[in-house]
Amino acid sequence: MSSTAHSKVSIIGAGAVGASMAYAMLIRESAREVVLYDTNEPKVRAEVLDLAHGTQFTGATSVSGGADISVTANSDVIVVTAGAKQKPGQTRLELVGVNAAITRSLIPQLLEHSPEAIIILVTNPCDVLATVAQQISGLPANRVFSSGTVLDSSRLRWLLGERLGVNASSIHAMIIGEHGDSEFGLWSQAAIGPVPLMNWRDENGRGLSELELDEIAHSVRNAAYQVIEGKGATNYAIGLSGARIVEAVLSDENAILPVSSVLQNYHGISGIAMSVPTLVNRNGAARAIEVPMTDGELALFERSAAAIRNSLASIT
Amino acid sequence: MSSTAHSKVSIIGAGAVGASMAYAMLIRESAREVVLYDTNEPKVRAEVLDLAHGTQFTGATSVSGGADISVTANSDVIVVTAGAKQKPGQTRLELVGVNAAITRSLIPQLLEHSPEAIIILVTNPCDVLATVAQQISGLPANRVFSSGTVLDSSRLRWLLGERLGVNASSIHAMIIGEHGDSEFGLWSQAAIGPVPLMNWRDENGRGLSELELDEIAHSVRNAAYQVIEGKGATNYAIGLSGARIVEAVLSDENAILPVSSVLQNYHGISGIAMSVPTLVNRNGAARAIEVPMTDGELALFERSAAAIRNSLASIT
Amino acid sequence: MSSTAHSKVSIIGAGAVGASMAYAMLIRESAREVVLYDTNEPKVRAEVLDLAHGTQFTGATSVSGGADISVTANSDVIVVTAGAKQKPGQTRLELVGVNAAITRSLIPQLLEHSPEAIIILVTNPCDVLATVAQQISGLPANRVFSSGTVLDSSRLRWLLGERLGVNASSIHAMIIGEHGDSEFGLWSQAAIGPVPLMNWRDENGRGLSELELDEIAHSVRNAAYQVIEGKGATNYAIGLSGARIVEAVLSDENAILPVSSVLQNYHGISGIAMSVPTLVNRNGAARAIEVPMTDGELALFERSAAAIRNSLASIT
Amino acid sequence: MSSTAHSKVSIIGAGAVGASMAYAMLIRESAREVVLYDTNEPKVRAEVLDLAHGTQFTGATSVSGGADISVTANSDVIVVTAGAKQKPGQTRLELVGVNAAITRSLIPQLLEHSPEAIIILVTNPCDVLATVAQQISGLPANRVFSSGTVLDSSRLRWLLGERLGVNASSIHAMIIGEHGDSEFGLWSQAAIGPVPLMNWRDENGRGLSELELDEIAHSVRNAAYQVIEGKGATNYAIGLSGARIVEAVLSDENAILPVSSVLQNYHGISGIAMSVPTLVNRNGAARAIEVPMTDGELALFERSAAAIRNSLASIT
Repeated sequence: MSSTAHSKVSIIGAGAVGASMAYAMLIRESAREVVLYDTNEPKVRAEVLDLAHGTQFTGATSVSGGADISVTANSDVIVVTAGAKQKPGQTRLELVGVNAAITRSLIPQLLEHSPEAIIILVTNPCDVLATVAQQISGLPANRVFSSGTVLDSSRLRWLLGERLGVNASSIHAMIIGEHGDSEFGLWSQAAIGPVPLMNWRDENGRGLSELELDEIAHSVRNAAYQVIEGKGATNYAIGLSGARIVEAVLSDENAILPVSSVLQNYHGISGIAMSVPTLVNRNGAARAIEVPMTDGELALFERSAAAIRNSLASIT
Repeated sequence: MSSTAHSKVSIIGAGAVGASMAYAMLIRESAREVVLYDTNEPKVRAEVLDLAHGTQFTGATSVSGGADISVTANSDVIVVTAGAKQKPGQTRLELVGVNAAITRSLIPQLLEHSPEAIIILVTNPCDVLATVAQQISGLPANRVFSSGTVLDSSRLRWLLGERLGVNASSIHAMIIGEHGDSEFGLWSQAAIGPVPLMNWRDENGRGLSELELDEIAHSVRNAAYQVIEGKGATNYAIGLSGARIVEAVLSDENAILPVSSVLQNYHGISGIAMSVPTLVNRNGAARAIEVPMTDGELALFERSAAAIRNSLASIT
Repeated sequence: MSSTAHSKVSIIGAGAVGASMAYAMLIRESAREVVLYDTNEPKVRAEVLDLAHGTQFTGATSVSGGADISVTANSDVIVVTAGAKQKPGQTRLELVGVNAAITRSLIPQLLEHSPEAIIILVTNPCDVLATVAQQISGLPANRVFSSGTVLDSSRLRWLLGERLGVNASSIHAMIIGEHGDSEFGLWSQAAIGPVPLMNWRDENGRGLSELELDEIAHSVRNAAYQVIEGKGATNYAIGLSGARIVEAVLSDENAILPVSSVLQNYHGISGIAMSVPTLVNRNGAARAIEVPMTDGELALFERSAAAIRNSLASIT
Repeated sequence: MSSTAHSKVSIIGAGAVGASMAYAMLIRESAREVVLYDTNEPKVRAEVLDLAHGTQFTGATSVSGGADISVTANSDVIVVTAGAKQKPGQTRLELVGVNAAITRSLIPQLLEHSPEAIIILVTNPCDVLATVAQQISGLPANRVFSSGTVLDSSRLRWLLGERLGVNASSIHAMIIGEHGDSEFGLWSQAAIGPVPLMNWRDENGRGLSELELDEIAHSVRNAAYQVIEGKGATNYAIGLSGARIVEAVLSDENAILPVSSVLQNYHGISGIAMSVPTLVNRNGAARAIEVPMTDGELALFERSAAAIRNSLASIT
């Protein structure tokens, strides 16, 4: 039999993000084989053991790993979580120099062992790193991209859901732009069920004011800081976000997710990676989907592009 | 320990719809206990056995049943699939007389054994029967409603997904109105990811014309006839639709689904059950959500209301 | 990206068994792609439509199909459900002639389009047909086998679970031998949790007598007849059984299941397919696992072998 | 509608174990409502936020929590993970004094807010703490118990599965006794599929020697130390173990799991909690199931009892 049902995901970095993502993938059966790679051998072996010890309670997904990069060989998808992490008070963009260097060194090694892999960057600042990774690899933009604002959009939906008393699955709203301080809610295209967000009224006839939307957007942007302050890192929600994107790739889903890939003439933006609604399938970030924006949203979009360009300039 | 984790769903009617719905609920673990009731004792016993024989491969959901209505006692949710079924060439409205009589007889018996249950009607014509059931029971409209156009909307999403190359989970579109020939697509509020349906363009810059949308709506309306012609009945998709609604109730989800409950001054319509976006939670069809419609859509909505009123008039 | 995450299952026969199996596979996401093939074109199209209409509520598994055998091309696994079916009062062995002819004609056609596929026969008498299919195809025994007593063992576990008040997942018991009237319970190796079946005592100190075990075995053997009498066919439990075996193959699980493949010197039996504990992985029925039997069990095993040989003799 | 489908689990302690367990429960939908409680307010708020931010990708389970114990009110099940944790080189029993004091203080407070809850202790040394908790609460032994060797048994099955090339779901083997250095494998009742472990032979005719079994048991006992050395704690596998036990309770499963509850005349042991095969259902650790042991196993069982008694003596 052809081994066509087989699927292998490698996660680079056995820190809290990488290990939680592997845990989510085991429980969800996101792939047949999950591999964890980290240069810290005792750490990666311990994480793999702890994960493997729970597989009695999960399905057919296996987990293994180690400190030799050859464990990642022939991956279908590689998720990069390695890098210095955001410290309390630090912005995502401040991480850029050190993590760009890591990215430049890692990507060629990973591609050597998995020349056909789709590469998903989770390390921050993820838009900058996705741009760098695409440039140094010379891969088409769909093959190497970042998780972008998938996580921020999930935060937004949870916040809106709590506020409105509606399940997150019935809330259609996206954060787009930079995965960072200049990100923004695409309110003009947000909906609660089939009801445009601006038309939503609760049972007492009350809707959401612009002020309230601003507050919610602010909460989303600051959610990472809040979590980092309390527990030193964020790992669970980003773990699920990564698992979700991987599933969309491996199952060739054609799902629309706000991942961040290098854009070509998207509302006038080219050459940098930034989150926009994107068709995700076995080709990765297969197509950036043009979405209508108001003038105000376009201005915010361009501000995000400028922030990413500035950051890119700082490392070249 | 309080038995609060327990949940019981009774399915009335062990025909193809009822049995397939029970099968879907077992596999999805929609409830802790699924009960099948039918007056045909050998039939219901055989279906229960066949379902129970597969539980080695499913989770903690149990299945049982019989021909004595007391098997349904203390249900949290009751799904009524019993009734004469649509024959090839027959319209849903033609079934009305016989199935209204069944409904009038069944509902009081069911409530006697499960005074707190939420009742979901799947039998056709489901809008008429939901109206009848609400009237004779005197229950609040949220407690007794029908699956309405949940199924039709699923058909629409599959058709749009196939046409556009997008996963159904990223297609936000609803069929509303009568679950029958006058139903229509709420195109003005449909979206592909965050992109309004009317603005969608494929990679070659092509969108959907009004003619194509008309064809798709036509396909949705005729899907049931097509399936019935080929296999004599529809059962699988309606089985999943029923399971989905039950889950939204039992998990108190606050999901927005196009179920059909008796409306009160909804875009001017009162006193008849018809599908509109509805918040579904442990109170059942908790709230009809006002959605903007174009003038054309409002006209179609009123046409649907008239069709249901005509049908109701024919049985009184 | 290599398309290695892709997996395709074709189900041959769009009758109640084939369609229910496809339904179970959609809900469980057993494969990426489920294809239904039947020579009756309107029937298979209707079943595929009805299944596809529910995919809004399921995961990434797609369904398609038709009456042209080329729809099955490049399958990883093929499940054959086609054949004349057991009528009320009829034994499984009486079906043998007609279904052997169907098998002889089908297998070469299927292999022509899917030369690497694992083939699983569900049609009855499945042991005889697995033997015939292996002989005419010349494939190694692991590549073509039948679902055997996987279903009967599930029935046994459900019955024991109901009787003992223990979840089926904690009941380790198998029916082996012929999938038919000579099958038997391998009581000597059955256990409830870690407790040998013979040592099990309930809270009142009572165990199961040999008489009770005989009754339970009798119930298992007659379960199919009971279901067929009441509803004309069995389809749900066999649908789940087929889905379960397919998953063990596609996920390369190395699960131990009582499937039926042509044995070689297994407790002295060679050249016929019969259910014994078997390691199931991507190579199909990879290895028949030698299990200790009592003298009484060995005699029953040989009786089963004789029954299958007699049936084989009747068609040559 | 009665709120019977509702189920609430509170996890006490927002450390790595508690938070990972909550994550597993969210992804698996183990309950309708998961609550995290910890006296460290910024920490528990951060963990709850991080978990909630991922709920876009999970099902109907909600998560909340805080530093006020009233957040646990009316729980169906409470899992206690709070306590000082095992440090590198430290044995489980050395933790006993400090964690017994925490247990004595916590249990009455928890019962005050959730008088009907089932309480599951995960904190180590879990057998000692389960004994203490039962004594001070005066609850029946089924209502307060510990996760015992559920985790160790999962480790054993993974190790055996890797060694033998068989899926963990087909490996029936338990570690029983103390959750600690005196625990042991119940080899006499272990089986691979239906084959007694001692009779298992691979395709080359080789079985497992007693020496190999000793090595495997040694690996299981040392697994926690190995993980702690590499990552400072174990959290993922214990998180899944806890989720699994909770599900068995909430779904009234009657599953047989090696949890640790206070025994009454079990192979002569009374008055201390120790892991043995136990029927787990909505009554908690409903019944310790008598399992045959060899003389050697009985001696090990008594050694485990002595170890727990010694530890108990040290704190009174």
